[in-house]
Amino acid sequence: MKIAVIPGDGIGPEVVKQAIVVLEAVAQKFGHRFEFQEVLMGGAALDAVGVPLPDETLKVCLKSDAVLLGAVGGPKWDDLSGHLRPEAGLLGIRKGLNLFANLRPAKVFPQLKSASTLKEEVLGEGLDILVVRELTGDVYFGDKGRAEIPGGQKAWDTAVYSTHEVERVAHVAFKIARGRRRKVTSVDKANVLESSRLWREVVSRVGQQYPDVELNHMYVDNAAMQLIRNPSQFDVILTTNMFGDILSDEAAMLTGSLGMLPSASLGEGKLGLYEPVHGSAPDIAGQDKANPIATIMSAAMMLRYSFGLEQEAQAVEDAVSRVLEQGYRTADIATPGTIVVGTREMGHLIAQNL
Amino acid sequence: MKIAVIPGDGIGPEVVKQAIVVLEAVAQKFGHRFEFQEVLMGGAALDAVGVPLPDETLKVCLKSDAVLLGAVGGPKWDDLSGHLRPEAGLLGIRKGLNLFANLRPAKVFPQLKSASTLKEEVLGEGLDILVVRELTGDVYFGDKGRAEIPGGQKAWDTAVYSTHEVERVAHVAFKIARGRRRKVTSVDKANVLESSRLWREVVSRVGQQYPDVELNHMYVDNAAMQLIRNPSQFDVILTTNMFGDILSDEAAMLTGSLGMLPSASLGEGKLGLYEPVHGSAPDIAGQDKANPIATIMSAAMMLRYSFGLEQEAQAVEDAVSRVLEQGYRTADIATPGTIVVGTREMGHLIAQNL
Ligand SMILES: CC(C)[C@H](C(=O)O)[C@@H](O)C(=O)O
Ligand SMILES: CC(C)[C@H](C(=O)O)[C@@H](O)C(=O)O
Repeated sequence: MKIAVIPGDGIGPEVVKQAIVVLEAVAQKFGHRFEFQEVLMGGAALDAVGVPLPDETLKVCLKSDAVLLGAVGGPKWDDLSGHLRPEAGLLGIRKGLNLFANLRPAKVFPQLKSASTLKEEVLGEGLDILVVRELTGDVYFGDKGRAEIPGGQKAWDTAVYSTHEVERVAHVAFKIARGRRRKVTSVDKANVLESSRLWREVVSRVGQQYPDVELNHMYVDNAAMQLIRNPSQFDVILTTNMFGDILSDEAAMLTGSLGMLPSASLGEGKLGLYEPVHGSAPDIAGQDKANPIATIMSAAMMLRYSFGLEQEAQAVEDAVSRVLEQGYRTADIATPGTIVVGTREMGHLIAQNL
Repeated sequence: MKIAVIPGDGIGPEVVKQAIVVLEAVAQKFGHRFEFQEVLMGGAALDAVGVPLPDETLKVCLKSDAVLLGAVGGPKWDDLSGHLRPEAGLLGIRKGLNLFANLRPAKVFPQLKSASTLKEEVLGEGLDILVVRELTGDVYFGDKGRAEIPGGQKAWDTAVYSTHEVERVAHVAFKIARGRRRKVTSVDKANVLESSRLWREVVSRVGQQYPDVELNHMYVDNAAMQLIRNPSQFDVILTTNMFGDILSDEAAMLTGSLGMLPSASLGEGKLGLYEPVHGSAPDIAGQDKANPIATIMSAAMMLRYSFGLEQEAQAVEDAVSRVLEQGYRTADIATPGTIVVGTREMGHLIAQNL
C-alpha cells in the first residue's frame, strides 16, 4: 500500500513522523507493507519551488492509495496573495483528488473529559459527533471576483450546489450513520438560500434509501446553538462546505482537546487524505512538544477508510486509549498528576502499546 | 415618540404586551409620551391579508421612530414557498427600513450564571459580548436561482459586499466599542472568499479612524472555536450577515438564557427595530408562560438607540436585575429556590421596580 506523505510546515513534520512510526509498528504486527513517499505542499513547497501545490505532488498523490498530511501554513507566508498562500495548496489538493467528503469526528476521550469547557453534566456519557462536511463545492469554489463601482468596489463569491454533488456526500453520511447511532442531522439555511433548498430536497430524497437511518433538518444558526446546549443530541451532522467549516471546528472545540482530533477526506474510490484538525503551530515547531495523537488517529482513519483494515484501525485507537490510561500526556493535554512526554516519546509509547 | 408594534406570532403578542407595560411605566416616571400603533407581519399577516409583510406595515414603520417586534413564524406557515414564509417578512422589513446593523448582546446576568453550559471558570467575570452583524447584504440578498443541468439541477446564491456597505456597519461597531472595552474583532473568511478580502480591507481602513479602539481579524472557523474556548477575549465582534447569523446565535447560547437576550437593528437615522432573540415558541403560546424579559430588554435598547434616553434604558435594565435579585423567574430560567411567575406578573414586577 502506497502512502504519499506531506509533512508540511511548523509541527507538521514531527507529528507525521510519529504517525509513520505507528504505521510501521502496525505493518510489523499485522504483516502489511506500507510504502511511504514524501512530497511537498504549503509553505515548504513555496520555499522550494515557488507554488503551494506542485504538479509533481498531485501526481504522486493520485498514484497513491492514501495521503497523510501534517499541517500547512505559518506567518512566514501570510502576506502572499490568494493563489500563493499555503491554504491554496489545501484547496487545490482537495479539488485535484476530488475529495468531496470530509469526515470530522468530535469525540471526547473519557480520560480527557475535564479539558472541555462544557460542564460535565452537559457532556453526559461523552460527546461523540461525526461531522460530514462537503468539501469541493459551495462558496469555496464558485465564481468570485471584484469590480469597481461608483464610490468604491464590490466583491462577490458564489455558493453553488448541484444535485449530484449533494447526492454523493449524502450517501457517505447515511452509510457511515449505519455503523453508528443511525441518525443524520442535515444542516442548511433553507429559509434563506436557494442552494440550501436544493440541498434539503436532495438529502431528503437520498434519505429515503436509508429507512433505517433517522433524518432531521436543522438551520445552521440553530445547529450552532444546539451544539452548545445539548451536543449529545447529534450523531452524524451532514452539511455544506462553508457551514461544515464552522460547525466542525465548533464541535471540535467542545471536546477541549484539538490536539487529539483527526480528519479524513474521501472521494469516490479508496484514495483519501488524512490530516490532524490542528494547525501548524509554528511557535512550538521543532521542540518535541507537539501532540502527535491527532495525526496518529488520522492514520487510524486511513487504515479504516482507504485500506479497509478495521481491526488495525481499532488497534491503533485502543493503543492511544491505553497510553492515556497509563497517564502519559503531551504538554497540551497535561493535567496535575499526569506524566508529560514529548512528541517522539508519545509516538513510541503508542507504537509499543499496539 | 411613535412606536410601531408588531406583536407577530406565537408568544409574540404576550411578550410585546409586557414590554409596552414597562414602556408605559417609563413614560409615567420620566414624563415622556409614547404612541403605539399595532401592525401586522409574519404568520398573522399571512392569515389576515395573504402576505408576510403588507405595504401598510412598512409604511407605518417608516413613519415611526422605532419598531417593536415580538416574534414571527410557526409550523402553521412552514410549508409555504420562500417568498410567502413569515421569515420573508423579516428579511423584507430589514431591507425596507434599511436596517444594516444588527446589535446582538450576549451577556450573562450574574444571577443566571449557572444556566450556561460552560464551566463557571470559563465564564470568569461573566460573559459580555456584543455581536454587530451586517444585516442587508451578503448571501442573503445577492442574486440566487436554480437551473436544470444534465442529471439534475444546480442552485446558487451570491454573497456580495460593497465598500460602502462594509464601511457603514464598521463605523457602527467602532463607535459602540468606544462605549465598551474598546476592542473590535472582525470576523471573515478572507483566506477563501473575495467578499471577505474586501471586508477585511475596508474594516482595516475604517479602523484607522479609531486609533483608540483595538482591531483584530479572525477567520470564522476560528471564531466559532474561540467563543467556546475563551469567550471573554471578545468585546465587539463585527461580522457579515451570514457569519453573524451563526456566531450571534452561538454567542447567545453560551449565556444559557435565550429568553433574556434582546436585539436592535439600526440604519443611518434613528429608526430602529427591536426584537427578542428567541423565536415564537408556538408550543407555549397563550399560556402566560413565556419570558418577556428579552422583549423588555429590547425596549431598553430602543430607549437607548432610537430615543437617546440612556438614563431610562439603564433604569429598565436595573429593574430587570432587581427583579432577578428578588428571586423571581419565569419557568425557562427557574432554578430550585426561586419563585416562578408568569409572563404578566414578570412584566408588572419589572414595571414596579423601575
Ligand atoms: C485553511 C482553510 C482554507 C480550510 C478551510 O476553510 O477549508 C481550513 O479552515 C479547514 O477547515 O481545513
Ligand atoms: C429567520 C431568518 C431569516 C433569520 C436570519 O437568518 O437572519 C433569523 O435566523 C435571524 O437571525 O434573525
